[in-house]
Amino acid sequence: MTPGGAGVAKQHLDRAAGSVAGDTLEAYLQAQATEFLRALRQHRETGGTASHGNGAEETVDAARALRRSARRISGTLHTFRPLLDTDWSEGIRPELAWLSGTLAREHAYAARLDRLLEALHRLSGPSPIPAQVPSGAREEKSNLTVGAAKAGALLERQLTLARTRAHSAALQALGSSRFHAVADNVAVLASEVPLSPAATTAHLKPLAAAAEDRLTDAITQLPLVSAGHPYNSEALVHGLSADPAPHPQDAPWHQVRLLLRLHRYAREVLYGTEAPVDVRLLDSGQALDRHRDAAEAATAAASAARTPRIAPATAYALGVLHADQRHEVEAARFAFQRAWLRETVGTS
Amino acid sequence: MTPGGAGVAKQHLDRAAGSVAGDTLEAYLQAQATEFLRALRQHRETGGTASHGNGAEETVDAARALRRSARRISGTLHTFRPLLDTDWSEGIRPELAWLSGTLAREHAYAARLDRLLEALHRLSGPSPIPAQVPSGAREEKSNLTVGAAKAGALLERQLTLARTRAHSAALQALGSSRFHAVADNVAVLASEVPLSPAATTAHLKPLAAAAEDRLTDAITQLPLVSAGHPYNSEALVHGLSADPAPHPQDAPWHQVRLLLRLHRYAREVLYGTEAPVDVRLLDSGQALDRHRDAAEAATAAASAARTPRIAPATAYALGVLHADQRHEVEAARFAFQRAWLRETVGTS
Repeated sequence: MTPGGAGVAKQHLDRAAGSVAGDTLEAYLQAQATEFLRALRQHRETGGTASHGNGAEETVDAARALRRSARRISGTLHTFRPLLDTDWSEGIRPELAWLSGTLAREHAYAARLDRLLEALHRLSGPSPIPAQVPSGAREEKSNLTVGAAKAGALLERQLTLARTRAHSAALQALGSSRFHAVADNVAVLASEVPLSPAATTAHLKPLAAAAEDRLTDAITQLPLVSAGHPYNSEALVHGLSADPAPHPQDAPWHQVRLLLRLHRYAREVLYGTEAPVDVRLLDSGQALDRHRDAAEAATAAASAARTPRIAPATAYALGVLHADQRHEVEAARFAFQRAWLRETVGTS
Repeated sequence: MTPGGAGVAKQHLDRAAGSVAGDTLEAYLQAQATEFLRALRQHRETGGTASHGNGAEETVDAARALRRSARRISGTLHTFRPLLDTDWSEGIRPELAWLSGTLAREHAYAARLDRLLEALHRLSGPSPIPAQVPSGAREEKSNLTVGAAKAGALLERQLTLARTRAHSAALQALGSSRFHAVADNVAVLASEVPLSPAATTAHLKPLAAAAEDRLTDAITQLPLVSAGHPYNSEALVHGLSADPAPHPQDAPWHQVRLLLRLHRYAREVLYGTEAPVDVRLLDSGQALDRHRDAAEAATAAASAARTPRIAPATAYALGVLHADQRHEVEAARFAFQRAWLRETVGTS
């Protein structure tokens, strides 16, 4: 945990003066490793369990900071791997991916439930879902609203269970020897980045440019023309297909989301984390986050509809919900197309 | 049935030379009445029942031509009512509306079923719905595809029944004394249009302009700003509300559809049925037709989901289908906004 905040900031400023690739990379990785260790300490101090009263929010923040730095370290090791000790960086990368994946799951289930319940309320129109179903004449009329309420309860049950399991798994992971090995490796990184001999002569920019090329190549493969045509109905094409697995048409978009993130991290290495945000990258990335979230929410609604012995009204509401989220997927692709093809504006 | 095709065409050409309002209106109404009587004769000759082999298509064509001219006569009597004998035209208008409504229903149910089955196939993805469900391991996976097939069968049963009933009702209507009174009135119209004294001095254009004003006023009331914003999610806002009745938000759009039709007919009176079509009016009208069709199809899917004792998989498929058609409603509003706000292009 050697370099403090001020020292890191100074090293970042030095980059402009043409410091060699190794120094810049080292400074970035050390800063991220320091942040990782800080977040880990915070997570331990706040109890590491979201069920505590006061510590809950700090724990969530700490877990988010841990994921954030783990992703940045992992992405940077990937993009600039010729500058780093191969064995070491190829050993730690899958471990960081495991960690950030494990930590992300709890948050993802919570966000998915929020998204689906919010959609159910939106789809039920301006009037709130009645707490009690009036008997008699209005019973049949209220059927589908009951369906929406039942669908919400079913999703809440299923996703809360999944979230609780993810929470336990995260806690277990943070106490495991596997995690301690990761933490030890990150502690090494904070004091001394294992650079390769190439780091003294090579340059960062070609490697960052290669990451950008991988992004733009992948975007070229996306169906951007149809995505830019509103209401193309493509996202729902498999809406009733037999396969409940994530739609194969989503995969290239998810891949672009990851490549965009790598590109963003490479820019952070080059220009510093304090550099002005590229609005186009920001908007494009947010559209792809929304794409991923909506796609997973749609899958969750479809999965819930496969629960045995649910009422037809519940299944109907889940069908409407699934289609709604698939349209969100389509809307997100449209938003991405708009953001990406827009000329770079603003500050960067 | 006095004026033949050639005579009518000549009268239409005379309009440009400044003939008085009454003559132009008379020529248009006589042409439409003649067309009505021709279609009626054709309908009777082809048997008047769609179940015959050869005659079926001609009967459908004849019924369409009957509806077409009935709508035009009724609309023209409405727009230009100060030029016509009030008692007579106010007596015949509801009768023409009853007739075209009765004749339209059979066609509407058939078109609705086609639209819904087409959507079910589109939503089931590129691979066709399997004719047989494989047993064992894949049984659960095929669940929702079975749902789509069952939903299709249910809609087919319900809408075919409705269509058959509408067919019988149309046949019964065409044999009724009420219908014969309408036909007699239209025969009068074909030989002598009951004009009011004002018809010799008044002008058509102010009345046609008033019809256009009613249209543009109604369009001003539409939420065109949000409709022009793709993926606004407004059409599905009541997707899960308790009320299965047509969405109240659709009504102003349906009203504009009718006013657009009246405006189009008024233009026919002024410029003749052979005048070049205004592309903007055509596109706007088609968008509103699609809006109406999708809204009614969405309602049919929601109604089918209320059938007692259906399987959850069937209800789920109907939910997806309902949401899909409500998104078609939203897409149609977007298309209307685009068509209407576009500058008048082309030939008119």
